[in-house]
Amino acid sequence: MNYFSSDFKLGILGGGQLGKMLLTDTRKFDIQTYVLDPSDEAPCKIGSNKFFQGDLMDFDTVYNFGKQVDVLTFEIEHVNVAALEKLETEGIKVYPSPKTLNLIQNKGTQKDFYAKNNIPTADYKRFESLNDLKLAVENEVVTMPFVWKSTEGGYDGNGVKVIRTAESFNGLPEVQCIAETMVPFKNELAVIVTRNPSGEIKTYPVVEMEFHPEANQVEYVICPARIDDAVADKARAIALQVSEHFNHVGLLAVEMFQTEDDEILVNEVAPRPHNSGHYSIEASYTSQFEQHLRAILDLPLGNTDSKAAGIMVNLVGAEGYSGNVVYQNIEKILGLNGVTPHIYGKKQTRPFRKMGHVTIVNEDIAEARRIAEEVKNTIKVISI
Amino acid sequence: MNYFSSDFKLGILGGGQLGKMLLTDTRKFDIQTYVLDPSDEAPCKIGSNKFFQGDLMDFDTVYNFGKQVDVLTFEIEHVNVAALEKLETEGIKVYPSPKTLNLIQNKGTQKDFYAKNNIPTADYKRFESLNDLKLAVENEVVTMPFVWKSTEGGYDGNGVKVIRTAESFNGLPEVQCIAETMVPFKNELAVIVTRNPSGEIKTYPVVEMEFHPEANQVEYVICPARIDDAVADKARAIALQVSEHFNHVGLLAVEMFQTEDDEILVNEVAPRPHNSGHYSIEASYTSQFEQHLRAILDLPLGNTDSKAAGIMVNLVGAEGYSGNVVYQNIEKILGLNGVTPHIYGKKQTRPFRKMGHVTIVNEDIAEARRIAEEVKNTIKVISI
Repeated sequence: MNYFSSDFKLGILGGGQLGKMLLTDTRKFDIQTYVLDPSDEAPCKIGSNKFFQGDLMDFDTVYNFGKQVDVLTFEIEHVNVAALEKLETEGIKVYPSPKTLNLIQNKGTQKDFYAKNNIPTADYKRFESLNDLKLAVENEVVTMPFVWKSTEGGYDGNGVKVIRTAESFNGLPEVQCIAETMVPFKNELAVIVTRNPSGEIKTYPVVEMEFHPEANQVEYVICPARIDDAVADKARAIALQVSEHFNHVGLLAVEMFQTEDDEILVNEVAPRPHNSGHYSIEASYTSQFEQHLRAILDLPLGNTDSKAAGIMVNLVGAEGYSGNVVYQNIEKILGLNGVTPHIYGKKQTRPFRKMGHVTIVNEDIAEARRIAEEVKNTIKVISI
Repeated sequence: MNYFSSDFKLGILGGGQLGKMLLTDTRKFDIQTYVLDPSDEAPCKIGSNKFFQGDLMDFDTVYNFGKQVDVLTFEIEHVNVAALEKLETEGIKVYPSPKTLNLIQNKGTQKDFYAKNNIPTADYKRFESLNDLKLAVENEVVTMPFVWKSTEGGYDGNGVKVIRTAESFNGLPEVQCIAETMVPFKNELAVIVTRNPSGEIKTYPVVEMEFHPEANQVEYVICPARIDDAVADKARAIALQVSEHFNHVGLLAVEMFQTEDDEILVNEVAPRPHNSGHYSIEASYTSQFEQHLRAILDLPLGNTDSKAAGIMVNLVGAEGYSGNVVYQNIEKILGLNGVTPHIYGKKQTRPFRKMGHVTIVNEDIAEARRIAEEVKNTIKVISI
């Protein structure tokens, strides 16, 4: 198949920041793209060859969009899977496959999959409703504290809550859920695995999420993770195992816990470019976005090694500001060594809205970490 | 000034591959762009916020386009300078300035400028016409062999010819020209200098153009140049001197000869992103395109060091092929370590048309050079 400057069309479901960063590479390779997104202000309106506004959960919208392209991928999991399945039976290549997506979209199914395939993960129980879970707690089948997770629709910490007392149930939705054992862990790690239809498979180095010491919020994604080589090797091996069992095509971001005993437990996966891989744009020989493209087009995969240490800081809207965004002090951080801001192109900021990220690249990881902190303390996403 | 996700507008004259690569960075920073290009199929039609089709040499077209933007830059020198001058007097920021452009657009003026400012360059004489030059040869004021250059409109080797005998004059146009002494040189080098309106100035490492041993054609641009440190330091110092005399804003690519005696002679300059800097997208901490943007917006300049050795191979249309382009064996070169193709997005190939380039990045420059040769021998730009 001839992808480059040809009539070939890649469809992308979702036109947000992940799609926007993917378009950097479709433009680089001059691969035609069609993008579907519900918002008329989606970042992918610019940079795609053709933009369609429409509902990603609507069968007909997704189906009719998909019929126009040769290969279909997505940058968000909340899409109409039935439409993808029908497209697949009609010969459209859909990567990752609806089968992978079905396994992943429901956290209960995802956990069952790990259990069935002997992939280490925290113990859990599934419940059809919040009420069933409450009964299980009353009957001491589940013991507090534990982690409640809704099985569907969770995103960026939504749909996850630590339950310490009966009061913690207040405000939780009456939905299917799991109760997961709380595991004391030292580190949250992630490994991105990439696989093409021919079966070539590669892992990126292990990254580490560094949390704010008080607020329970990821502050830095650090590559490589500052962990023992043996632990890193184990994490990459487990990520590879997950990938092989899923038999996925494209990227698979595998989020993991490193326990106090240096065990690795798989937390969850995302079958697409991932926040934990943004550092790769500047730090890796092949960015995760180019790699995703190579994978879904069955091209050879690129080198996943790093050229230098990379640290990512998310840019989220500051509390107390809503309206037209201003990136206060962005010119100051541009004056720091090896700093690249990525601005997603959302005109309106809101508290905690993901507005962009900043990558810090340096030969010396400690120096990168120092600059990352300076970036974090300098730039502020406010409104005018 | 607030550039990011704001109403600020950057105008770009020219919508070819240099503009396209610049748009990667305007998108990364979410800076609004308006692009003017004569072709309805210009690569910048996609990725710019607004695209205008029009003649870059037409006063009114350039003037009316420029009135709509806050800062105006260009990716090609052949633009209507009078319109730029008028825009500048009316408060539009034009970078590089029409003054710089005026100095550079005419090779005679450019050479006079070097002579006046004691910048080392090959000896030359200016002539108002080919006829005047022929008379000078007859009268032995100019001795063959020498290099004939038309003072205006030359591009990629057009407008340059070595004159060895009277027959060499055949076919040359009756235009203003210079006759330049032939200097035996070991290497063609280039240094990109970048400067912002506040006067911050930085040079990139010296790159080396490696020529095909028989055909007189650049095959590889290699960073860093494989030359002595002392020569490299001298080249960077001279490039800095050129930049300071021009007082330019943005990028200035300074092409130079390293003579047999290790003298550095300035050949010519280009006030814009340059083919000799394409390696920087993958190899440098800051790509030349991001750097150009930082410079013209008076933002702090980024680190010009390299993360790894970088080699660039141009992708030009193969002889004997015209029509819809196919990049034969591109999937094979994608399987080589650290290889990134850039496809400019021209649907039609023609012999020697610049269709793209390939960057090879590696920690080890000798290994990069080996892979670059494999790339060169593998990929072929043909038509179907």
